[in-house]
Amino acid sequence: MSQQSIKVGDKADVRYLLRIADSCLILSQRLGEWCGHGPILEEDLALTNMALDLVGQARGLLTRAGQLDGQGHDEDQLAFLRDERQYFNPVLMELPRGDFAFTTLRNFAVASWLLGLWQRLQSSSDAEVAAIAGKAVKEAQYHQQHAADWVLRLGDGTEESRARMEAALATLWPYFNELFADDAVDAAAVQSKLGPAWSELKADWQAAMDEILGEAGLAQPKASAYVPAGRVGIHSEHMGHMLAEMQYLQRSYPNGVW
Amino acid sequence: MSQQSIKVGDKADVRYLLRIADSCLILSQRLGEWCGHGPILEEDLALTNMALDLVGQARGLLTRAGQLDGQGHDEDQLAFLRDERQYFNPVLMELPRGDFAFTTLRNFAVASWLLGLWQRLQSSSDAEVAAIAGKAVKEAQYHQQHAADWVLRLGDGTEESRARMEAALATLWPYFNELFADDAVDAAAVQSKLGPAWSELKADWQAAMDEILGEAGLAQPKASAYVPAGRVGIHSEHMGHMLAEMQYLQRSYPNGVW
Repeated sequence: MSQQSIKVGDKADVRYLLRIADSCLILSQRLGEWCGHGPILEEDLALTNMALDLVGQARGLLTRAGQLDGQGHDEDQLAFLRDERQYFNPVLMELPRGDFAFTTLRNFAVASWLLGLWQRLQSSSDAEVAAIAGKAVKEAQYHQQHAADWVLRLGDGTEESRARMEAALATLWPYFNELFADDAVDAAAVQSKLGPAWSELKADWQAAMDEILGEAGLAQPKASAYVPAGRVGIHSEHMGHMLAEMQYLQRSYPNGVW
Repeated sequence: MSQQSIKVGDKADVRYLLRIADSCLILSQRLGEWCGHGPILEEDLALTNMALDLVGQARGLLTRAGQLDGQGHDEDQLAFLRDERQYFNPVLMELPRGDFAFTTLRNFAVASWLLGLWQRLQSSSDAEVAAIAGKAVKEAQYHQQHAADWVLRLGDGTEESRARMEAALATLWPYFNELFADDAVDAAAVQSKLGPAWSELKADWQAAMDEILGEAGLAQPKASAYVPAGRVGIHSEHMGHMLAEMQYLQRSYPNGVW
């Protein structure tokens, strides 16, 4: 037996929250892939802890999005029972975990982005969102710092670690654009004071990036005009595989625990 | 390039600590397999957190075992660079993760066992071991309680959940024997006051088991004479596969992080 897919409505506030919730949820899946496979025990723990923080953030926002959507869907239904086109995370989050340089550079970029987002969401007109942000801001600070240490260590490390970091930077760079792309969903969130337009996050993020890459002696790739469209449900080929694995249990045994 | 395997010495205190450290490490790997694949987000988090606690406990004991062994091996070398015959966990820990009934019943049994062990290790003659135990005892209490809730819920649940719990009980029962098997390693630990003989843990464990299975209305299988020998390095066919996956990174890129 298999469970029917659910669809969320078209409400802008629901979309706005799902974009963030899905960012946390999907990146947490990629980090979770390191669980039990980290290069050293300490880092295995750190990456898994980061994944857990992100799942916690996703749960809060999924629950709130479900309430605002008004169709009675809980966090688990939203996490596990949507079709690919109904997930709204930037494509950046779903890219395969890659090597350790890729993982830590993406973590730094996402943590810096989420940090700016959570800081602003602390004054959201939605009290529940503001409360989630209040807790998440501390977690994002820690994630950013931890990832920064690794970016520096690898960027300013051996010839191989530096080459890997440069490769990660070149691969990831075009995907960052989507983190600052605005549309009508953002405009509505600004109007209702639910949260900031994503474009507002660019300056702080760029400053954090300039600082860490400068310190690590890594050159920033040339700007790319490419803007992925995960936030409107158009995902890369990696998303389907990930969802299939992620949703298998819940879809096979609806409401069960097997 | 590939890294040479390390061997630990024959010291009884090192063996005693490695048996416990490996129990935590190997079970944490099995729990980590649920990471990102739990039936519901909340349980995914709980199992992953339990895995993290177990890794933390393993790290402390591996570090201490490495010091006592005196060959300069750190926690990561001990975790990743031993051959199968040099791991000393009971076979119970390495059995494949199974379904959710299997996972929660094993968790209950192991947490109850570890709880008795950590309680006694708090007064170990080795101050570092005593300190590790002081922290771990609280974690084991939480793990036991969490697993107990699930054993009750499933044992006393639907027809299917009950059938699955009965199957888990029948499969796991013979493996429990090893948790209470003594040998010269235990005798030495008792003598040096490093820790208790494993046979001492049986009465408390059996009482916890009687209580939970009684409450869940589950009958205890008949005692089995079989005693697995993981604690002396004789493992099931599942161990090699698990170690291969677990050690891949560290062995392929010694001291690296890829």
